[in-house]
Amino acid sequence: MMNLKEQVGIKAAEFVKDGMTVGLGTGSTAAFFVAELGRRIREENLKITGVTTSNVTSEQASKLGIPLKSIDEVDSVDLTVDGADEVDADLNGIKGGGAALLMEKIVATYSKDYIWIVDESKLSEKLGSFKVPVEVVPYGAEQVFRKFKKAGYAPTWRLRESGEKWLTDMQHYLIDLHIPEISKPEQLANELDLTVGVVEHGLFNKMVNKVIVAGKDGVRIIEK
Amino acid sequence: MMNLKEQVGIKAAEFVKDGMTVGLGTGSTAAFFVAELGRRIREENLKITGVTTSNVTSEQASKLGIPLKSIDEVDSVDLTVDGADEVDADLNGIKGGGAALLMEKIVATYSKDYIWIVDESKLSEKLGSFKVPVEVVPYGAEQVFRKFKKAGYAPTWRLRESGEKWLTDMQHYLIDLHIPEISKPEQLANELDLTVGVVEHGLFNKMVNKVIVAGKDGVRIIEK
Repeated sequence: MMNLKEQVGIKAAEFVKDGMTVGLGTGSTAAFFVAELGRRIREENLKITGVTTSNVTSEQASKLGIPLKSIDEVDSVDLTVDGADEVDADLNGIKGGGAALLMEKIVATYSKDYIWIVDESKLSEKLGSFKVPVEVVPYGAEQVFRKFKKAGYAPTWRLRESGEKWLTDMQHYLIDLHIPEISKPEQLANELDLTVGVVEHGLFNKMVNKVIVAGKDGVRIIEK
Repeated sequence: MMNLKEQVGIKAAEFVKDGMTVGLGTGSTAAFFVAELGRRIREENLKITGVTTSNVTSEQASKLGIPLKSIDEVDSVDLTVDGADEVDADLNGIKGGGAALLMEKIVATYSKDYIWIVDESKLSEKLGSFKVPVEVVPYGAEQVFRKFKKAGYAPTWRLRESGEKWLTDMQHYLIDLHIPEISKPEQLANELDLTVGVVEHGLFNKMVNKVIVAGKDGVRIIEK
């Protein structure tokens, strides 16, 4: 039997049609979606253009023979499929466990259709089980960290295995916030957006219109 | 007779006292302030620590023997002095002609006292004579540019002399917005802060508490 991540990855690929420009998400679940597109290109002669959300995904897609364009080379994206770390009942979500939140949010912003694929462990009534990643400019990053600490957000640095600060594809640092229950995700998003030094954050509020969920009882689709 | 920029640069240096941590602005006016601090260190044995707002200012300060720390190495900054491109009657302003707006805003955010030094040509009833620079992430920058164009903001790219896109000290691009009259600077700032791909912008609304202005009739100070 396929694992849950593979099930939703393959299910989401059904929404991809010939001629589409497709946003390719990042992470272990999105990788199954990208792999399935590769299979359809190979076996079914599917014709698409991919728009990547990270260097890692670019590599995978290139190996699979998916033609790629940058988000700046296309008018818009027809459909983007990506994973998510946590999704609440209003389809707000947290993303960025894979450190690609900035490019993911940029591609999602210019997508006509946007789907998340998750296993049911990612669903929760209210956000907060998962950390909220915040991408920050290196200069002044310690000051932003201290500000988050004072605010009670229990920040930690995202680190490389070597112990150095993680550097994103766009050359920024990542600070993870640990907020047990996020009662007002819009308000937190707004506060983070207005913080000087913050480039972007992992709160994706009401951006998605469809979530494909795999669980013990099969695959189901939640729509707004 | 000293030129106007030199007059305000020297005047602002009077607010710097022994032992202070001082934010050093960027641009042709701030350079006179930094030069005057160098003179006082040399001739009057002034003891300060400088916090820089650009690589250019770091170079100037180092040559003058001003000891430097990064904004992350200090608790806070006692006083920052910087130029501005335009200042309105409510002390909102536009900065970024020198391409250093991001580091300037970061340092200003952590400064207890913040002073602008300008000649009187920079004062206007409402902002808009000067372009509003927006610092953006390279990936997706063309999409952001198109969005600004649709919004009627007449965007232009900041370019190097070679014709390539300007790359800031923090490795981002700059888009200049040409908005003839900015009636609600807070609203525009908010809109820009919430735009995905925008790192920071050149609207510095109500951040400054003192503006030193040089004109034909001498130097005066505007305070909030």
